[in-house]
Amino acid sequence: MASGGPEIEQLIQLLARLPGLGPRSARRAVLHLIKKKESLMIPLSAALDRAVLAVKTCEVCGNVDTTSPCGICADPRRTESGMLIVVEDVSDLWALERAGVGAVRYHVLGGVLSPLDGVGPDDISIASLVERAPTFKEVVLAVNATVEGQTTAHYITDRLTESDTKITRLAHGVPVGGELDYLDEGTLSQALRARTQI
Amino acid sequence: MASGGPEIEQLIQLLARLPGLGPRSARRAVLHLIKKKESLMIPLSAALDRAVLAVKTCEVCGNVDTTSPCGICADPRRTESGMLIVVEDVSDLWALERAGVGAVRYHVLGGVLSPLDGVGPDDISIASLVERAPTFKEVVLAVNATVEGQTTAHYITDRLTESDTKITRLAHGVPVGGELDYLDEGTLSQALRARTQI
Repeated sequence: MASGGPEIEQLIQLLARLPGLGPRSARRAVLHLIKKKESLMIPLSAALDRAVLAVKTCEVCGNVDTTSPCGICADPRRTESGMLIVVEDVSDLWALERAGVGAVRYHVLGGVLSPLDGVGPDDISIASLVERAPTFKEVVLAVNATVEGQTTAHYITDRLTESDTKITRLAHGVPVGGELDYLDEGTLSQALRARTQI
Repeated sequence: MASGGPEIEQLIQLLARLPGLGPRSARRAVLHLIKKKESLMIPLSAALDRAVLAVKTCEVCGNVDTTSPCGICADPRRTESGMLIVVEDVSDLWALERAGVGAVRYHVLGGVLSPLDGVGPDDISIASLVERAPTFKEVVLAVNATVEGQTTAHYITDRLTESDTKITRLAHGVPVGGELDYLDEGTLSQALRARTQI
């Protein structure tokens, strides 16, 4: 392509691989970066350099942070004796933290069991979960409500039956602010069965 | 925020300022970058570093490239005696190049006249266009079909009347592959008036 040198083309191609950006929006993003060279492109370049050097995966829980153990695992207020929330992905951990769920610890599986895709128990962080779980009062399986997520939850429950730790899962129900007629039947019937007194 | 260190937070905030990305998608993009550290994050960081150093604005036409004059202005096959296409923005130049319009040169105005926003003739590259235009056979005003774009086209036409250069504009009509019932009346009536024999 004649427009833009190889450096620009390469930047477009790499940005296009980010989720939510395609070739067209990556091109627009690069033009925006070039126009705001001083105020955006140079700071972004520096921030990316710093993040590449700083980012680590926590050796305890699998969270992504700039220290290992991560800020959550190192926080003494989140005592080991409390609640351990098991999630599929770091993004789920971040979502729960944004929701302000309190002084809990996390365990990131890094995926779900999926025999069709060749993902077995050794491919996700189940062994380390089995090791960590007995030091907690309660393990909450906050995996997604998909077939693979539920299979993974069953498998983990089986592996943890010998410990005294209480195992729970997230409640199913109507999302806060959700409209009933947009909900699927499964959620609605679960919400009715789990109804609570006002 | 407890999830992610300050380096990660800053990266999210900078990415969120790109067009097409918001805070939520920027967070997803950063997580994706971290997961693909070796194959995406490090190459992107290096590409951005290189682009920051390499990117220049062409002193002749206003295009963005890694050389000045840019690759298009320096290309001897695109002779000065031919066609000069005037566009508002570098993205328009790139779009025309992708369309393969041939051996032409460009002039990037860097905006349109907009008295309400305080953009006058001295704020966009009109003086250099008036200087360049006489060396070309034809100047095509490929500005957008907005009120400001058309005002700018009229102003440029006025400034170029003394030269012998032919001044043209892009044709209006039905977009290729477009459906008639989705088109506005203005485009349809222009397309009918400019009908051609089959």
